[in-house]
Amino acid sequence: MLKVNQNYLKLPGSYLFSDIAKKVKKYREEHQGQEVISLGIGDVTRPLTPTIIKALHDAVDDMSDIERFHGYGPDLGYAFLREKIAEFDFKRRGCDISAEEIFVSDGAKSDSGNIQEIFSDKCTIAVSDPVYPVYVDSNVMAGRTGTYDAPSSRWSDVVYMPCTKDNDFVPDLPSKTPDIIYICSPNNPTGKALTKAQLQSFVDYALKNRAVILFDAAYEAYIIEDDVPHSIYECEGAKDCAIEMRSFSKNAGFTGVRLGYTVVPKNLVDTEGKSLYSLWARRHGTKFNGASYIQQRAGEAVYTEAGQNEIAGLVSYYMENAGTIRDGLTSAGFTVYGGVNAPYIWVKTPETMTSWQFFDYLLNNAQVVGTPGSGFGPSGEGYFRLTAFGSHKNTRNAVERIVSLA
Amino acid sequence: MLKVNQNYLKLPGSYLFSDIAKKVKKYREEHQGQEVISLGIGDVTRPLTPTIIKALHDAVDDMSDIERFHGYGPDLGYAFLREKIAEFDFKRRGCDISAEEIFVSDGAKSDSGNIQEIFSDKCTIAVSDPVYPVYVDSNVMAGRTGTYDAPSSRWSDVVYMPCTKDNDFVPDLPSKTPDIIYICSPNNPTGKALTKAQLQSFVDYALKNRAVILFDAAYEAYIIEDDVPHSIYECEGAKDCAIEMRSFSKNAGFTGVRLGYTVVPKNLVDTEGKSLYSLWARRHGTKFNGASYIQQRAGEAVYTEAGQNEIAGLVSYYMENAGTIRDGLTSAGFTVYGGVNAPYIWVKTPETMTSWQFFDYLLNNAQVVGTPGSGFGPSGEGYFRLTAFGSHKNTRNAVERIVSLA
Repeated sequence: MLKVNQNYLKLPGSYLFSDIAKKVKKYREEHQGQEVISLGIGDVTRPLTPTIIKALHDAVDDMSDIERFHGYGPDLGYAFLREKIAEFDFKRRGCDISAEEIFVSDGAKSDSGNIQEIFSDKCTIAVSDPVYPVYVDSNVMAGRTGTYDAPSSRWSDVVYMPCTKDNDFVPDLPSKTPDIIYICSPNNPTGKALTKAQLQSFVDYALKNRAVILFDAAYEAYIIEDDVPHSIYECEGAKDCAIEMRSFSKNAGFTGVRLGYTVVPKNLVDTEGKSLYSLWARRHGTKFNGASYIQQRAGEAVYTEAGQNEIAGLVSYYMENAGTIRDGLTSAGFTVYGGVNAPYIWVKTPETMTSWQFFDYLLNNAQVVGTPGSGFGPSGEGYFRLTAFGSHKNTRNAVERIVSLA
Repeated sequence: MLKVNQNYLKLPGSYLFSDIAKKVKKYREEHQGQEVISLGIGDVTRPLTPTIIKALHDAVDDMSDIERFHGYGPDLGYAFLREKIAEFDFKRRGCDISAEEIFVSDGAKSDSGNIQEIFSDKCTIAVSDPVYPVYVDSNVMAGRTGTYDAPSSRWSDVVYMPCTKDNDFVPDLPSKTPDIIYICSPNNPTGKALTKAQLQSFVDYALKNRAVILFDAAYEAYIIEDDVPHSIYECEGAKDCAIEMRSFSKNAGFTGVRLGYTVVPKNLVDTEGKSLYSLWARRHGTKFNGASYIQQRAGEAVYTEAGQNEIAGLVSYYMENAGTIRDGLTSAGFTVYGGVNAPYIWVKTPETMTSWQFFDYLLNNAQVVGTPGSGFGPSGEGYFRLTAFGSHKNTRNAVERIVSLA
């Protein structure tokens, strides 16, 4: 009998950012002439930089020439890009990751949604809470999360690791032993980055409990503090327990370009000795046909000297916004977190308001769009995420509008 | 306990085309100086055409300008592309498909691998045999296929629809009622295209038995015969039982560019009335972040008048190769099929040789690479696939070499 995947039907509502987009669209239609400023979805706004643009044009020209045309690429990505990634993102930081362990993809969202598929549906997941919704939602779809309790916004079979002001948004080790631990640092949405010692404690825990860590380092380019690792492989033993996911979206502005990668160390195995590398390679080979040649050339350009300087410029542009938001809201009496090693500012909502009430309040009274913290998990209730990805002008205007409400 | 997805472990060997690539690589290393010609993997070799190249450059320029920069796109694709697809590929052929029913993706391989995920793992699949390996492999990974019997190359829970010379490579209706029916027409690998009457019989069967048809039309641009439908929605009732997958790879040469789309009619439901459209939208929104803006602009250019003329030129270039292969091999005494409405020629192997033996024979004696028919399913044994995607020169040389062996 033709039946849909019943796990999908358990998902409450639709994807967080689709909900927000619909609300904003409706507001704009009903209030034409009013300028709405979005500091909501984590989407960049600065154009691609000259070195990337040149690499894209050059790659397009390659595709016009019979001698330089590229059809299907290697399943796991071109060596010219994988080698640069291994060298710049890992070896230069003392991490023993080889080009062969890099899987190039069309983006970290695809990877972070798909990676769970290589594990048994009997595995238990732990997530820091609040967290990027894709981790939990993709596991709901796979049937790993049990039943949903609407009042508490919790899944019965998910181990939540609350990140609250009481623990300075650093997750405690899981209260029940999971098989798979999702960690995002610098964190989306709280903006908190784990120190090396804090991340090492998770690596030690995973090794001891034979769990795997799925480490999302999409925001590593925003790290400025010395004791915050850029890669989990800076921690001892991580190659035996961790997969790392990376993005070109937030450093080089590739949100509309689409390029990311995942590191799966070759020696990583499950408790029966089965290779995670082989399974992920098989998934890539069967359900994906490689990232575009054009995009991979653009990714390569990120690692040139000029490319590195340009993306440092993008990051510092956005981090100036982070400062504007932090300072402005603090001066207006809000309690704010994050925004130091990350482009996210995590705002405590006024006491009388839930996350969604504050969303509506800001949209209706300041025409500013943010993201309700509760959309990221139960411990996000009472918080609100603002992003630093707007223009300086929009960010200043948005902050002024919020401040004027206080 | 951390365990991998046990279904993956059931997959015999690795992905067909990865195996071939490894064999060819080894041969080349051991026989340097010998020119190997590949008519194996279905990868195009002609460069992108001027209209596409211009659209790509223009889109790259957009990304360099703050006013025209595009970050994350709409989950399901940009309206500018979806509307063109609906108009050109469907409405002009009398198919009532709206832009909203088009889901733009990074390619038909991703879609044809991922689409099974929206169905219950209790659903039974039927596949024409031989067939593109992704259909079966992706269902193996999801646990729908039962156990593998190596001697017969068959999965216990898959309903095979053999396509052999006895039925002129037109699959008979399934012998046992499945829930999901995969059909690829024009077919990869046999090169056979179903007539409208033949495809209508499958649509009627699916409607009667409440099954869904997953229709892969990646090769529709190669159809020249009038009674062969380009879309399954040319058949009456198909909107109530069929999903269609399309590619820009084989018409416009986007194998290294990456762009495809899937049509899921809004009214399509399972036996309990659950919307397949909603589930696929949810998957797109959760595990995918849209196709690149740059690629979608290139896709749009395919539908301009110049774009249409140029891709017709590509198709006719490759179909000249199909004629070269058909005629050459026929004159040398081989029995060949396909190559009329499709860029694939399906060759009967010499009586004493299995598909892989013929692969090795051609590689070692003619330095020509093709694809063993048995890689596409049990009924592919004793056949061999050659593709028309080479250059005229390489194709002629390959055919001469094969003919000279006879």
